[in-house]
Amino acid sequence: MTDLLIRNVRPMGGAACDILVRGGRIDRIGPALEAPGVPVEEGGGAIAVPGLVEAHTHLDKTLMGMGWYENVVGADLRAMIDNERAERRRLGHDPRRQSMRHALALAGAGTTHVRSHVDVDTENGLAALEGVLATREDLRGIVDMEIVAFPQSGLVSRPGTRELLDEAMALGADLVGGLDPCGIDRDPRGHLDAVFGLAERHGRGIDIHLHEAGELGAFSMEMIIERTRALGMRGRVAISHAFCLGMPDWVRTEALLAALAEEDVAILTTGAPSREVPSVRRVLDAGLRMGAGCDGVLDTWNPWNRPDMLDRARIVAQKNNFRSDADVELALHVCSTGGAAVMGVADHVLAEGRPADLALLPGTTLAEAVATGGPVTLTLKGGRVTGRQGRPEREAP
Amino acid sequence: MTDLLIRNVRPMGGAACDILVRGGRIDRIGPALEAPGVPVEEGGGAIAVPGLVEAHTHLDKTLMGMGWYENVVGADLRAMIDNERAERRRLGHDPRRQSMRHALALAGAGTTHVRSHVDVDTENGLAALEGVLATREDLRGIVDMEIVAFPQSGLVSRPGTRELLDEAMALGADLVGGLDPCGIDRDPRGHLDAVFGLAERHGRGIDIHLHEAGELGAFSMEMIIERTRALGMRGRVAISHAFCLGMPDWVRTEALLAALAEEDVAILTTGAPSREVPSVRRVLDAGLRMGAGCDGVLDTWNPWNRPDMLDRARIVAQKNNFRSDADVELALHVCSTGGAAVMGVADHVLAEGRPADLALLPGTTLAEAVATGGPVTLTLKGGRVTGRQGRPEREAP
Ligand SMILES: [Zn+2]
Ligand SMILES: [Zn+2]
Repeated sequence: MTDLLIRNVRPMGGAACDILVRGGRIDRIGPALEAPGVPVEEGGGAIAVPGLVEAHTHLDKTLMGMGWYENVVGADLRAMIDNERAERRRLGHDPRRQSMRHALALAGAGTTHVRSHVDVDTENGLAALEGVLATREDLRGIVDMEIVAFPQSGLVSRPGTRELLDEAMALGADLVGGLDPCGIDRDPRGHLDAVFGLAERHGRGIDIHLHEAGELGAFSMEMIIERTRALGMRGRVAISHAFCLGMPDWVRTEALLAALAEEDVAILTTGAPSREVPSVRRVLDAGLRMGAGCDGVLDTWNPWNRPDMLDRARIVAQKNNFRSDADVELALHVCSTGGAAVMGVADHVLAEGRPADLALLPGTTLAEAVATGGPVTLTLKGGRVTGRQGRPEREAP
Repeated sequence: MTDLLIRNVRPMGGAACDILVRGGRIDRIGPALEAPGVPVEEGGGAIAVPGLVEAHTHLDKTLMGMGWYENVVGADLRAMIDNERAERRRLGHDPRRQSMRHALALAGAGTTHVRSHVDVDTENGLAALEGVLATREDLRGIVDMEIVAFPQSGLVSRPGTRELLDEAMALGADLVGGLDPCGIDRDPRGHLDAVFGLAERHGRGIDIHLHEAGELGAFSMEMIIERTRALGMRGRVAISHAFCLGMPDWVRTEALLAALAEEDVAILTTGAPSREVPSVRRVLDAGLRMGAGCDGVLDTWNPWNRPDMLDRARIVAQKNNFRSDADVELALHVCSTGGAAVMGVADHVLAEGRPADLALLPGTTLAEAVATGGPVTLTLKGGRVTGRQGRPEREAP
């Protein structure tokens, strides 16, 4: 178990102090700590925050390090899905190697916890899952990882997928995934009954991609809430994207937020610049848990996202028209403590007794750190240094 | 006049070749050029594009290099305006020094042309304008600069502003600015008659900030078009932001685009993530000239924008949900050749006989250069090296 003394850091941008780690946990936070024989890291006055949390990504999709991927597909959801399924084979995509690259890049950039969706489909079977499971094993002690078995290509509309998801859960996936019950499977009842059925059978939670906008998304969301209530799954369901919560009809949105709060359904956002997205302030004010993620990084879908939750805090803040320092801090919260709460880490804060999972950020204030965008100077996972200057300590394959 | 041989670059991402500059202009583009006695720059296989064009910014606002500015104001437009006017004095903001920092940063990042709005108000008078005019003089041969005299705090609602704008035009401003005729002055007729009156009197063009959304913005836009037609100012008016063109009612938007096209009114966008914005594809398809800008950089308004048009191409692309390589190239076009057309540089391309204003970008394709975000490896203005590796050659004050 790791012991470490971190000198001269400013927790949450406050006064400078030291942090003493013993046995992987924060033992003391205070000025001029002494710990003879314990290794020392110089913080240089950086801001200490709880480890960043990547709560919505796809470790099995990235093409990092495989050269530039020319995208000729555009932005049609169905076309992007079909293109990716075919391209995995053509490009010789190795999900184990690629998920290692992606997860290590995240660790280098301050991340200590990751929730990743992983494709399960009848063409590539469980290959992606097996790769990411191997990476999770390999990176124990570097990132805590939750895996969502994700029917990216459809569930009830592709016979055989339900059985594969069943296998995926038995193999070690933590949550059952779902996707646009109307838009993709064209059968919201069939899709959601299958997703919730699998979750019930395996005693696991759920995380559903919901890109459907406006009234269509609201309808699917209602069906998710109904099933969460009926099956007693309060607090175990998350909805990713939830673009429908960004629709202009505030009366409608407020009612949805209240219903989500009743079942403690969590929201995960990417702050997608081109879409209507849930308002961070409204979601938090409604009492919901809320996290954020970068989504897929350098994949067949898009070249935009970077494996960097500080960059994501910036994107979420800009999308929410956050300008004041206090608002910007809220975006950072969602990319750290907020996302941890969605992953079931209830008390992801810098406090004595908590695991020494933290990131050091350059800057004088939290808002400056987000605006400047790093690089994160140090990542600690259980007191172990996992990243320096935005780069992972462990070399990526 | 500058002579230079640039070896091994790929114009627009195509085949490798050399570019020979003579007398500040592109003399030849071709393989294995010889030019005894002419200084050589090694391009290293980088992509050559026409110099980037920052077509909407505020050189007089930045706080770059002045330490972190804690923003306690938030996102209310009127409050942001009043806050800034007061803060200029309190912070000891020097518009000459600050505009130098900002413009040089742009040059370092590939920019060769800048259109800047400059505040003119009854509290700070023409001080900002005088500072930016001095910078323009100082940076001749580094960036071509257009200056818009900008009534940021209101025009007819603040007696004395019209006279100041009149002085500003006499002093050397190139265009008359305006701002939300309904939202700020609460007198669209009075505001626009004053703006167009000043433009007519000085024989200059117009660039109006129009944040007004939906029908209100459409109404103001119609009044701008009416005056452009009535005064024979076809091709000499630009509208910045034009958020109303992003409204969902496509039939309404299409009619506005057609009317704008008839009067050749140009559109400038920032790709604002939190707002509805004009669609790049629709604006260009309607035959309009379109450019882009970073808007204010590190100022009392917001900490987000960077003085970097390659970064802006990325933001514009993401906002437009551009994913395919071809679409991403369109965003880059808007940040270069498109913006130049708005500034009256009709043929801003890499071609023999054209000024040697260009930027070298790292990457294998244009889309990769935008996605990766640089840094721009070399900026040339009239064949003179003005930036290297994202940094200006000339030291900023
Ligand atoms: Zn996703
Ligand atoms: Zn502006």
